[in-house]
Amino acid sequence: MQFLTTHLARCGTRLCLGLDLDPERIPDRYQGRSDPLGKLGADIVEATVDLVAAFKPNAAFYEQQGPAGWNSLTELVARIGQRAFVIVDAKRGDIGNTSARYARAFFDRMGAHALTLAPYMGRDSVEPFLAGRIPPVDQLGPGMGAYVLALTSNPGAADFQLLQVDGRPLYWRVLETLVRWNSGWAAGRLGAVVGATRAEELAAVRQAFPDLPLLIPGVGAQGGDLAAVQAALQLGNGPALINVSRDVLYGRDLVAEPEAVRERAREYARRLDLL
Amino acid sequence: MQFLTTHLARCGTRLCLGLDLDPERIPDRYQGRSDPLGKLGADIVEATVDLVAAFKPNAAFYEQQGPAGWNSLTELVARIGQRAFVIVDAKRGDIGNTSARYARAFFDRMGAHALTLAPYMGRDSVEPFLAGRIPPVDQLGPGMGAYVLALTSNPGAADFQLLQVDGRPLYWRVLETLVRWNSGWAAGRLGAVVGATRAEELAAVRQAFPDLPLLIPGVGAQGGDLAAVQAALQLGNGPALINVSRDVLYGRDLVAEPEAVRERAREYARRLDLL
Repeated sequence: MQFLTTHLARCGTRLCLGLDLDPERIPDRYQGRSDPLGKLGADIVEATVDLVAAFKPNAAFYEQQGPAGWNSLTELVARIGQRAFVIVDAKRGDIGNTSARYARAFFDRMGAHALTLAPYMGRDSVEPFLAGRIPPVDQLGPGMGAYVLALTSNPGAADFQLLQVDGRPLYWRVLETLVRWNSGWAAGRLGAVVGATRAEELAAVRQAFPDLPLLIPGVGAQGGDLAAVQAALQLGNGPALINVSRDVLYGRDLVAEPEAVRERAREYARRLDLL
Repeated sequence: MQFLTTHLARCGTRLCLGLDLDPERIPDRYQGRSDPLGKLGADIVEATVDLVAAFKPNAAFYEQQGPAGWNSLTELVARIGQRAFVIVDAKRGDIGNTSARYARAFFDRMGAHALTLAPYMGRDSVEPFLAGRIPPVDQLGPGMGAYVLALTSNPGAADFQLLQVDGRPLYWRVLETLVRWNSGWAAGRLGAVVGATRAEELAAVRQAFPDLPLLIPGVGAQGGDLAAVQAALQLGNGPALINVSRDVLYGRDLVAEPEAVRERAREYARRLDLL
């Protein structure tokens, strides 16, 4: 994900907009049109693409719509194209033979630049997502890299991720492994998901693994503090994205209105700038 | 998954057929028809439904086909209906708000009876898959339960699953947690995925957690030994499914011919009977 650093510098922001669009929270005027979720997503992309570095569509919100949802997601990724980095938040990971199929689905068919992955099944569940695709040097392209879950923003993170392994939490071992893979077969193309809800841990992670690309969800609705995240990020240099989903899409509104989404995204970008 | 025990007794077999149908390995006569993958899947279901207890379609093999693949998968699950237990192998798991969407996609929209899940994000990533759905007492129905990855059949299992936590491998902690959840909020509706490629560990798991429902992949192409698996299963009583995918679908053939698939499934069922 070397190009990501240049891309972030060019954008001037680390803001990533999570597209967790709820089919039940769509403005009235979209209802009754064909593919309301797709049309709203497209309008939100157009309204915010100059304010964000990346978009992170959440696969589940499209899958719950069945085949039509996959269609919407595919069109959305195509629409974003080269204008922003697109991470499909799909949290996949399976035996190698199966992971290769997921890579085909999201990278070759859909054109996503990156994907989120679950680490539990180990190296051969991650490798096929990087194999056979050489990312373009000077532009965004399918299969540039993947973000592997390390320390997530939800309460259940404590169940397994914080278990002690050799005197360190399990997620630390995941991070060490990613760094090792990055200096070998993964060639710097793996990043880690580290939630914003644990700012102290995030700072320690950034200090210990300053070059590792990070994707940081959990700001806003999930309670992560933007200032604490930004402060932690100063401790390292790797490309880092701060994701906000619900708080930008809805704020206190019931539905996602593209113009209001733009205002809230602009406010987040401004706050990030000032920190 | 209480009903599963009755279902397995009625079927008289533990055989689960993994539907990892490769779009590139389809008999010629299916090519050129609309939805060849869907039609082949349907014919394989009809050819084997009296021989197996369950089908396990692998989501990745359908997702790689884009929206049309989701359509095929949905039709396949509907076709199986009440005639066999259907586990969609999707390995999902995310923050609660997102897991609820995946549950909607696979249970409410698609009608899958069960799903495979990744454990890394903990309790609130698993809970929404059981919430709000009361499984029917005397028949198969959507959302009966879920199988959570514990010890998988691939080489990468060693990277994290075998790490020592309090003197036991991590997967053991996952199993203990599942058993605890089963006696509380999960009400016996969680099972574990334990690969056939580690027969010694499988025997230890069965002895320590005799009632836990098991889904055992990795027999055949992945190298798991059927006799060793069947012997390990004698050590407990919980409903257990032995999954075979490639070795039944293809054997040594290049393509999956429904009649040949039936012969290979029958051979597996017979070998299981004799053990």
